Amino acid sequence: MELILNMLRLREDEKTAFIALASGAEQVFAPGGRMPDGDEIPAELFARATVILGNPPVPALRGAARLRWLHLWSAGTDAYQTPGALPEGVVLSSSTGAYGPSVSEHLFSMLLALQKRLPSYRDQQMKGVWADLGAARTLYEAQVLIVGTGDLGASFGKLCKGMGAHTIGLRRDISKRADGIDEVHSFDTLNDLLPCADVVALFLPHAAETVALMDERRLHLMKKDAIVLNGGRGSAVDCTALARILAQGHLWGAGLDVTDPEPLPADHPLWREPLALITPHVAGGDHLISTGRRIAGIALQRLQEYLMKNNQRQEDQAHCQT
Amino acid sequence: MELILNMLRLREDEKTAFIALASGAEQVFAPGGRMPDGDEIPAELFARATVILGNPPVPALRGAARLRWLHLWSAGTDAYQTPGALPEGVVLSSSTGAYGPSVSEHLFSMLLALQKRLPSYRDQQMKGVWADLGAARTLYEAQVLIVGTGDLGASFGKLCKGMGAHTIGLRRDISKRADGIDEVHSFDTLNDLLPCADVVALFLPHAAETVALMDERRLHLMKKDAIVLNGGRGSAVDCTALARILAQGHLWGAGLDVTDPEPLPADHPLWREPLALITPHVAGGDHLISTGRRIAGIALQRLQEYLMKNNQRQEDQAHCQT
Repeated sequence: MELILNMLRLREDEKTAFIALASGAEQVFAPGGRMPDGDEIPAELFARATVILGNPPVPALRGAARLRWLHLWSAGTDAYQTPGALPEGVVLSSSTGAYGPSVSEHLFSMLLALQKRLPSYRDQQMKGVWADLGAARTLYEAQVLIVGTGDLGASFGKLCKGMGAHTIGLRRDISKRADGIDEVHSFDTLNDLLPCADVVALFLPHAAETVALMDERRLHLMKKDAIVLNGGRGSAVDCTALARILAQGHLWGAGLDVTDPEPLPADHPLWREPLALITPHVAGGDHLISTGRRIAGIALQRLQEYLMKNNQRQEDQAHCQT
Repeated sequence: MELILNMLRLREDEKTAFIALASGAEQVFAPGGRMPDGDEIPAELFARATVILGNPPVPALRGAARLRWLHLWSAGTDAYQTPGALPEGVVLSSSTGAYGPSVSEHLFSMLLALQKRLPSYRDQQMKGVWADLGAARTLYEAQVLIVGTGDLGASFGKLCKGMGAHTIGLRRDISKRADGIDEVHSFDTLNDLLPCADVVALFLPHAAETVALMDERRLHLMKKDAIVLNGGRGSAVDCTALARILAQGHLWGAGLDVTDPEPLPADHPLWREPLALITPHVAGGDHLISTGRRIAGIALQRLQEYLMKNNQRQEDQAHCQT
């Protein structure tokens, strides 16, 4: 019999939907990784679970002998892809698609704030100073280069297009189109496109080839009055080089929700660079109520597909045995 | 003969267009109110001008005996509408329509910044603190109440709708519809609509009936987690009451580009209210390059209409005399 260990944070109606959907299975709800009474999830449950919905601690999975499917609430899968993290044969899926609106809205807000100099006006406000800081920028007719056009990058592109920007996306498979992207190019055009962009927005997963993609040389290839944004993994931008370049007055600004390392050490020069705007990796996660609803929706749909496939397989097996 | 005193700041191609359009008139260019050599505009020119494009000092207009038309670069006309400011019979027009994109983008940026807690993250950044401040808000499915739906309010509505908001506009003439406004109601519904709005955005001209429209009582009618914005005239919000209400934790935040008084005195309690975001009346003016282009375009079009009417009148007069 299936045992579904459901670690998602659910509303009552969503919980009811899970119970109804998998009425033939045993279902244990441990929202946020805690049992309803607040205790940790017992090892016995991990040992019996055939399906886990959520992000269990990797060590707990060592005893998950019956596990067939792990579906994460996160979009990233890094921690579960290291060799040995998952028992052999376990299918891994993630909630990619749930975070696009939340992350893209946050980075878009950082971009607009920088264009209108809101961080510097905030600094003046704290001193009670009323002083015009000069020209602002607009996305209208701006060139926005989006590096990585998955769920996050495409959502971000749509928001920029809504303000009248032209969006250029870089991705591995240039045959894939997305709503928010006007033009698609391959990653090897990056150096040619950087000098033309008013905004460079990075939405890249952590990978060997993305580490320090925006190094000092590439940051210098950007226009003097361009804005760089990072909403993917912090390692894609060399934060020390960025602090140096901002201090030289080379860019209009930088908006980072992710940094390298994280947390950014209190003495890192980027913290007090006035043209940088830093938020502590809060663009996604559970910061928007609607993200939780999307995560639940994706999990319900995936579970339905899983159960249908299982039924089919059992029917096929029954058919073979007769 | 016509003398057009053109005080607009123009690009070379725009100046050429003015010269070509009114080739039969004398044209003097005094960009920003200064003669090309940097001197003040001589009284003699004001005395001879039949048309002024720009915002001359009101006292200079006392000697403008031949003036027939004053076209302002500003959207507001307050200073020129006081009795005696303009010689009898002078037609007054303004550049309303030029500032919508600039002002609405600025207020929209303030709104998104508040929704994502960027001002508070900025305060943390200045102390080198990496700490999650909790839930954010979104415009998706939010109710946005726009008080005053002229050029500015309607532009703002369009931006909010682009993020999935529902927009409700209040205006005097409810038969007038606008692109960015889903529903239109009259001003007397304000008290009923305030408790339902997630965002209340004011774009009102200065007038006796708009002074302190958002007083302590009406600010209290707003939802506990709503955001109030002011992008019109500062007097529409009681800033002292607002500071008190924010200190009580009643609102999610307030974004003000205009205040009462202006500049806000250094010791005003609103300055250091962390949930307020204040910019020093910089949403419009010449902060976006594109606004200057719009002002020039509007002035060119109006001048063309003026010259055509003049020609028609002269032809009619000639016809009567024969």
